[in-house]
Amino acid sequence: MTIENEFDGTPGRAETRRISRTTVRPMSALDLLSQREMASLANANAAIHELFRRCALAILNTDGETDDARSVYDTYADFDVNVIPEPRGLKLELFNAPAEAFVDGTMIAGIRSHLFAALRDIVFTEHKINERETFDLSSGEGITDTVFRILRNAGVVRSDTQPGLIVCWGGHSISRTEYDYSKNVGYSLGLRGFDICTGCGAGAMKGPMKGAAIAHAKQLKRDSRYVGISEPGIIAAESPNAIVNELVILPDIEKRLEAFVRVAHGIIIFPGGVGTAEEILFLLGLKLHPRNADIELPLIFTGPAENSAYFEQIDTFLRMCLGDDVAEHYQIITGDPANVARATRTAVKAVRRQRITHSESFSYCWNLHIPDELQQPFIPTHDNMAGLKLHRDQPQHLLIAELRRAFSGIVAGNVKDFGVRAIEAHGPYRLHGEGEIIDGLAGLLHAFVRDGRMKIDPGTYKPCFELAAGKPEDT
Amino acid sequence: MTIENEFDGTPGRAETRRISRTTVRPMSALDLLSQREMASLANANAAIHELFRRCALAILNTDGETDDARSVYDTYADFDVNVIPEPRGLKLELFNAPAEAFVDGTMIAGIRSHLFAALRDIVFTEHKINERETFDLSSGEGITDTVFRILRNAGVVRSDTQPGLIVCWGGHSISRTEYDYSKNVGYSLGLRGFDICTGCGAGAMKGPMKGAAIAHAKQLKRDSRYVGISEPGIIAAESPNAIVNELVILPDIEKRLEAFVRVAHGIIIFPGGVGTAEEILFLLGLKLHPRNADIELPLIFTGPAENSAYFEQIDTFLRMCLGDDVAEHYQIITGDPANVARATRTAVKAVRRQRITHSESFSYCWNLHIPDELQQPFIPTHDNMAGLKLHRDQPQHLLIAELRRAFSGIVAGNVKDFGVRAIEAHGPYRLHGEGEIIDGLAGLLHAFVRDGRMKIDPGTYKPCFELAAGKPEDT
Amino acid sequence: MTIENEFDGTPGRAETRRISRTTVRPMSALDLLSQREMASLANANAAIHELFRRCALAILNTDGETDDARSVYDTYADFDVNVIPEPRGLKLELFNAPAEAFVDGTMIAGIRSHLFAALRDIVFTEHKINERETFDLSSGEGITDTVFRILRNAGVVRSDTQPGLIVCWGGHSISRTEYDYSKNVGYSLGLRGFDICTGCGAGAMKGPMKGAAIAHAKQLKRDSRYVGISEPGIIAAESPNAIVNELVILPDIEKRLEAFVRVAHGIIIFPGGVGTAEEILFLLGLKLHPRNADIELPLIFTGPAENSAYFEQIDTFLRMCLGDDVAEHYQIITGDPANVARATRTAVKAVRRQRITHSESFSYCWNLHIPDELQQPFIPTHDNMAGLKLHRDQPQHLLIAELRRAFSGIVAGNVKDFGVRAIEAHGPYRLHGEGEIIDGLAGLLHAFVRDGRMKIDPGTYKPCFELAAGKPEDT
Amino acid sequence: MTIENEFDGTPGRAETRRISRTTVRPMSALDLLSQREMASLANANAAIHELFRRCALAILNTDGETDDARSVYDTYADFDVNVIPEPRGLKLELFNAPAEAFVDGTMIAGIRSHLFAALRDIVFTEHKINERETFDLSSGEGITDTVFRILRNAGVVRSDTQPGLIVCWGGHSISRTEYDYSKNVGYSLGLRGFDICTGCGAGAMKGPMKGAAIAHAKQLKRDSRYVGISEPGIIAAESPNAIVNELVILPDIEKRLEAFVRVAHGIIIFPGGVGTAEEILFLLGLKLHPRNADIELPLIFTGPAENSAYFEQIDTFLRMCLGDDVAEHYQIITGDPANVARATRTAVKAVRRQRITHSESFSYCWNLHIPDELQQPFIPTHDNMAGLKLHRDQPQHLLIAELRRAFSGIVAGNVKDFGVRAIEAHGPYRLHGEGEIIDGLAGLLHAFVRDGRMKIDPGTYKPCFELAAGKPEDT
Repeated sequence: MTIENEFDGTPGRAETRRISRTTVRPMSALDLLSQREMASLANANAAIHELFRRCALAILNTDGETDDARSVYDTYADFDVNVIPEPRGLKLELFNAPAEAFVDGTMIAGIRSHLFAALRDIVFTEHKINERETFDLSSGEGITDTVFRILRNAGVVRSDTQPGLIVCWGGHSISRTEYDYSKNVGYSLGLRGFDICTGCGAGAMKGPMKGAAIAHAKQLKRDSRYVGISEPGIIAAESPNAIVNELVILPDIEKRLEAFVRVAHGIIIFPGGVGTAEEILFLLGLKLHPRNADIELPLIFTGPAENSAYFEQIDTFLRMCLGDDVAEHYQIITGDPANVARATRTAVKAVRRQRITHSESFSYCWNLHIPDELQQPFIPTHDNMAGLKLHRDQPQHLLIAELRRAFSGIVAGNVKDFGVRAIEAHGPYRLHGEGEIIDGLAGLLHAFVRDGRMKIDPGTYKPCFELAAGKPEDT
Repeated sequence: MTIENEFDGTPGRAETRRISRTTVRPMSALDLLSQREMASLANANAAIHELFRRCALAILNTDGETDDARSVYDTYADFDVNVIPEPRGLKLELFNAPAEAFVDGTMIAGIRSHLFAALRDIVFTEHKINERETFDLSSGEGITDTVFRILRNAGVVRSDTQPGLIVCWGGHSISRTEYDYSKNVGYSLGLRGFDICTGCGAGAMKGPMKGAAIAHAKQLKRDSRYVGISEPGIIAAESPNAIVNELVILPDIEKRLEAFVRVAHGIIIFPGGVGTAEEILFLLGLKLHPRNADIELPLIFTGPAENSAYFEQIDTFLRMCLGDDVAEHYQIITGDPANVARATRTAVKAVRRQRITHSESFSYCWNLHIPDELQQPFIPTHDNMAGLKLHRDQPQHLLIAELRRAFSGIVAGNVKDFGVRAIEAHGPYRLHGEGEIIDGLAGLLHAFVRDGRMKIDPGTYKPCFELAAGKPEDT
Repeated sequence: MTIENEFDGTPGRAETRRISRTTVRPMSALDLLSQREMASLANANAAIHELFRRCALAILNTDGETDDARSVYDTYADFDVNVIPEPRGLKLELFNAPAEAFVDGTMIAGIRSHLFAALRDIVFTEHKINERETFDLSSGEGITDTVFRILRNAGVVRSDTQPGLIVCWGGHSISRTEYDYSKNVGYSLGLRGFDICTGCGAGAMKGPMKGAAIAHAKQLKRDSRYVGISEPGIIAAESPNAIVNELVILPDIEKRLEAFVRVAHGIIIFPGGVGTAEEILFLLGLKLHPRNADIELPLIFTGPAENSAYFEQIDTFLRMCLGDDVAEHYQIITGDPANVARATRTAVKAVRRQRITHSESFSYCWNLHIPDELQQPFIPTHDNMAGLKLHRDQPQHLLIAELRRAFSGIVAGNVKDFGVRAIEAHGPYRLHGEGEIIDGLAGLLHAFVRDGRMKIDPGTYKPCFELAAGKPEDT
Repeated sequence: MTIENEFDGTPGRAETRRISRTTVRPMSALDLLSQREMASLANANAAIHELFRRCALAILNTDGETDDARSVYDTYADFDVNVIPEPRGLKLELFNAPAEAFVDGTMIAGIRSHLFAALRDIVFTEHKINERETFDLSSGEGITDTVFRILRNAGVVRSDTQPGLIVCWGGHSISRTEYDYSKNVGYSLGLRGFDICTGCGAGAMKGPMKGAAIAHAKQLKRDSRYVGISEPGIIAAESPNAIVNELVILPDIEKRLEAFVRVAHGIIIFPGGVGTAEEILFLLGLKLHPRNADIELPLIFTGPAENSAYFEQIDTFLRMCLGDDVAEHYQIITGDPANVARATRTAVKAVRRQRITHSESFSYCWNLHIPDELQQPFIPTHDNMAGLKLHRDQPQHLLIAELRRAFSGIVAGNVKDFGVRAIEAHGPYRLHGEGEIIDGLAGLLHAFVRDGRMKIDPGTYKPCFELAAGKPEDT
């Protein structure tokens, strides 16, 4: 769902016009490749070429009216892209590109910039990972190093910035009230000079950037940063909005998540569905981990006054599972954008002081520990789901990691190809746990369905899970 | 009426908080005054000081929810402003300024910039005109020179720009559909690199700038110009929106109008009321004048597809009064923003070629002739109104000047203090003319009332004019 | 005498090649003139046109090998310049311009910039003074205001700079050792971030700029200022060297002197002749004036170690005339460029503190009082010279003003057309005064002649003055 | 020998003052290292640390008065440097650094920039080559790729530049006349907008940069490039002069040479000694190679008019060995800097056209073939020297490669540690060849000794070679 889309054209004209062939050049020197690098692009194996082709298409389809990746790929099945060497760098040759990315035959500059960011990140990074093996992905420390180098190569991590990059998360598909609220929060942040980082796409990803952009214009701020962090699997569904002026594409969802938390000087969560719940648990999993006890990572939950019940329910669930102390790790502010921005300012000052005290980089928080149980992907087989330990008889940070896995599995069972088929074959996941935790989970999931946050029809929805008090099954 | 207002604060809090005392410094060197200039500011006569105080208040009240100047002045009767000399320039000391202009006690940078633009233009220009008499306002040529020097002093006229500044006019109070359409036109213009100039304020003044700003962001255009041309009498009702990054305040309404037409490389008219009709007639008065026969000044009327009747009616009236040839001087495009932008591009290219051929400045069209009958203000006394020659037995450019005066008088009779009182004392204006012209006028005015374009209640409205076929009265 | 001249050409080719006709455009918007201003240029009376023609020629002859203005004017008698209006401003049409200002037919950019600075200052300012009478030159205060406005118009006075502009004075025609020393002082100043202001031309005017330019390059300083302050009567003899990136031409010698002392944050004097002595007396006249008792205006005399006798003799003369306290107003540092720069830094810090305390502009010292006896030109008729009161029975600041006049007259009698003829007609000036003062003067002047600082052949020189102890003559 | 050294200090003070401890931070984001990179610096093996320490010392000793590397290292034996992590990047901690690099305790910005360029290139590149083995140095193509990536990482190769980088080579130790001439050539090149690339150091390396810097200032050129290409073994003897604003350090002499010829758009050779002769033969070896027949690589020999015999002798020798056709590959222009610059401009235009035709990079000439016999280092053992085939009975490009090796050996035998010891142990090298070639060589070498171009006392010099007509010895 794209709200508030500007439109250059005559209403009613066919939407799927395309440009049969065109070439575009990069805007900066980033893309000056060596002959070997160029050769490896030209000879890229089919998988890498297809990955870049799909990302390029997703980018050209920016602000498209659909977020159904498959339909985009089908509509533009004849789209293709080649890398061509040039006297002063290289150019891209495009076939059958969506006409919306062009104005009277010339590609919109911001989209052009995103296209070359994708070239830089996808093709080049993939090449490094797969062929040259210069990245060490075998250890947590190696992954952290890899994420840093990708962000540095993209210019997102750099040494000339002060703390002030606020990561905004929340639902992709939200109500107009929630969208306007997220825009007002972005506006209040922007008035106070903060930059915005989101996951690209629409909804709570676009609102804060748009609000901040207007505030930055009023404040005559010239060096504003609108950082979009994406990954190849999600970019088509959440194609980068045109405000993004620093786009970086991480290789997968886990590295994308790590990139967010290490570049953030503050995190703001807007209302969302199961995915947002998973993110909240991920963040609290980090904050509750003993090795992170001393790390400042401000976390605010916020939404319109009308949504106050949403965060109250989440707060109640968290306190029940993890004790009241967990609430020290976040602030809930509803219906007051200026107050969100003021609380952010206070918290970011503390981050800045701590970075200086710890001799820690302003732009990448190396000290933050991401434990294996959060960094490693969870595969939601029926056995793995059934084996989750949803009881309070374990350290907080382990319980919260289990809860995150539960939500992660439900996301898969609802919408991911792999999960949906597993549910069809084996019936719903069975989750076992302490009665109170199971009850809390049930209440939360019920509310998500009721409020339309799960992209499923509340009338016909057949849950992909069954909840039961008790110990994990023997398998 | 302000549409789409961002909000930094807690809803429901008192709107009229004020900052009891604060000081602000200018952002650039423009305001480095000589000691004599400073002294003349400090000793400014009460009239100039009051003029600046009111403009400053209007600017600080930017994006305010009311366009009722009087109510703003009443609410902030205790507002005051002083000029204070400083080691590196000067600063302003403000008392009881509207809190909305500040974020946590610091004035928003864009508003600060507008404030010093007003200081530069109002105080300084007034000083030049009134005390030093260095401006020659006794001749048309002298006025043109004065307007140039004020614009040059404000940095609006400069030599490093290419033709591409599009003046947008239209109603201050328009429907949401019309506002969105004006925004889409601005967006399509912005995608093609055009800059926007309007009269500040809301409605059709704000929409095109906002749309262009989004397009410029997508095109990574850094040097975008959002020129606002105001005058002290109107600024409170049409306080500059924050997107304006070049604000200039001309001494009065006629010089403001002259500024618009001399800096424009193209003019786009959105739907509006009697005032907009007056502006259309002013422009056609210029274009029909024999001395301007060879001057390119592109003019497009545009509105949403739903508004097509609006411009059809105007077109019919113009053709009836002035013959079908008049329609060669404008284009009507409805419901197609991209087409408006493309037509503008074609036309601006012709402007550019002509400027080069004529050795004419890109930034100020000296060659355009503004005849006395359009440059001189018209005082709508009952006698003057009754004496208007509304028949076709005269050159086109004289008839159109008379028509403009008629509309000008009706604007005054409807809303201006002077006019309203005259109507109360002497009854409605009586306008005489050829039957067809009178009928056309009547139809146009009826439609404006019906469509709510005259800010008056169609149910209770008692027209301020009577139309009659025939010769002007003997008086 | 120009030392260290780079050369683009084949040695031995004719030096006086010229470009028969060419046009040049300005580099910035400064020169966008109104039609009236343009007309007044086109119709400029012969005097103003000739003034601009001569200045333009002087500028084009930059780094020329001669400093004999007359010979330049004779050589290029067929040179002419016209102002031509243009679509985006104006251009200059040049006839028979010196080829040295061009590289393969294109004018050197720095020279082009100087040419338009001259247009801005000479023609425009002259126009304001002579025709519009907007400058008040009838009072000291009015002159100070005029100088400010000319400097502001030239961008030399602006509000975005910190104190750090060092005025360097000294001989035009100096030894290689002295030139190298002045360059090293400039280098040491530049290493510490100081900018340089001189009177253009060669010798001690060029050395410090050249040294500073090298130091600024080493310090990667991008915004370096090399301010040249000239006047129409001197520019041909001291044509601006190409390093100057801010050239401003004041209307006459007194306003040029006032410009120097008001923009300076520190003044450094290198060895020179009678002219330099006059400047020293002018500066001390300011510093000794009671109204300037509290004004910081750092003054350092410096030269190579070999020159230490030069400043010792001046110091001795000043102490004798004015008492030992006079020495508190200057520092003498010989043979130690780094120490000069360090002393400057300490002194400029005090200037900065004082400007803040006094709410005084950083870029123009309004508070400095220039008394009439220093601001008004002195006409060295024989009567006026004979009437000078060269005795200590008067306030310091009056005696020093009389001494300055004595040197001023000797300069005229030596080299100025007016003075030379007066001497031919009436014999040498006769100066009367206290014995010690007369003896001191005699010693000083003798040393100048001996050391070749007076551009006259010591062997054949017949002094233009006679010194005698006693009271001024009755006339 | 350093000519024209600016001096900040008191003459006569001790030259070897040092700063006991200080820290400096980088000026840009280039040096934001990952934790692994930082760790590898901290744990750098002794060899890499020592290499960086020596380069850092060489850089801090910029414009030092000696070019004797050993003496610099001995004088500052107690100098050391460490890399320290920082919140926003890293800093360097220096012990006992030469005081000349500092002004009142603060390091000169240009030197600071060079220091971090060395960190970037030496430590980082060494690390990549030695530990990660990401560079392929086993093939010519792999070396070319490596050189490209080092230059790209240093920002020297980039895509936003037009052809215009002129490589200047010539003697390190030259006469004042030759130095002034090289400066005038740089001046004439700079007036025409060319940038300069040299090998750092003094003499013909510094003159062209200094001249160009003055010309660029006159042309108000802001983006001037003064590229210095060095290598660890030479940097101490040729420490980068402060004008260099892009310093890059290649791993060894062969890659440095390759960097020069691939970034050059034109090459200018000033007079020099045996080393310069070796460079000339290297360049002609490239140009004569059949695979380079179509590559534009402009080559001009130039010197003051007084030096015309120098290039005449070289020309005669080349024609004798290689036939008159060889002279088509270079131009000789003496005593006319402007003509050198004009010829360069014509030639660079041809380069630009060719790059576009060949779809070749403007900033790195990939197409240029460097054959093995020029790319591989030559080890001048007595056997290898004796085995050189100095006769015309072979293709031109092979003979010229042999001649280059002969000069390379003589350079080693004269001044390199390895060569000098070999001569002491085994007596002079014996070179055999055709009579004419041997005679030509003898004449050339004799002239170098006579003219003091070999840094050896002509009186006492005992040549390190014996020349004999005949076939190579059997060994």
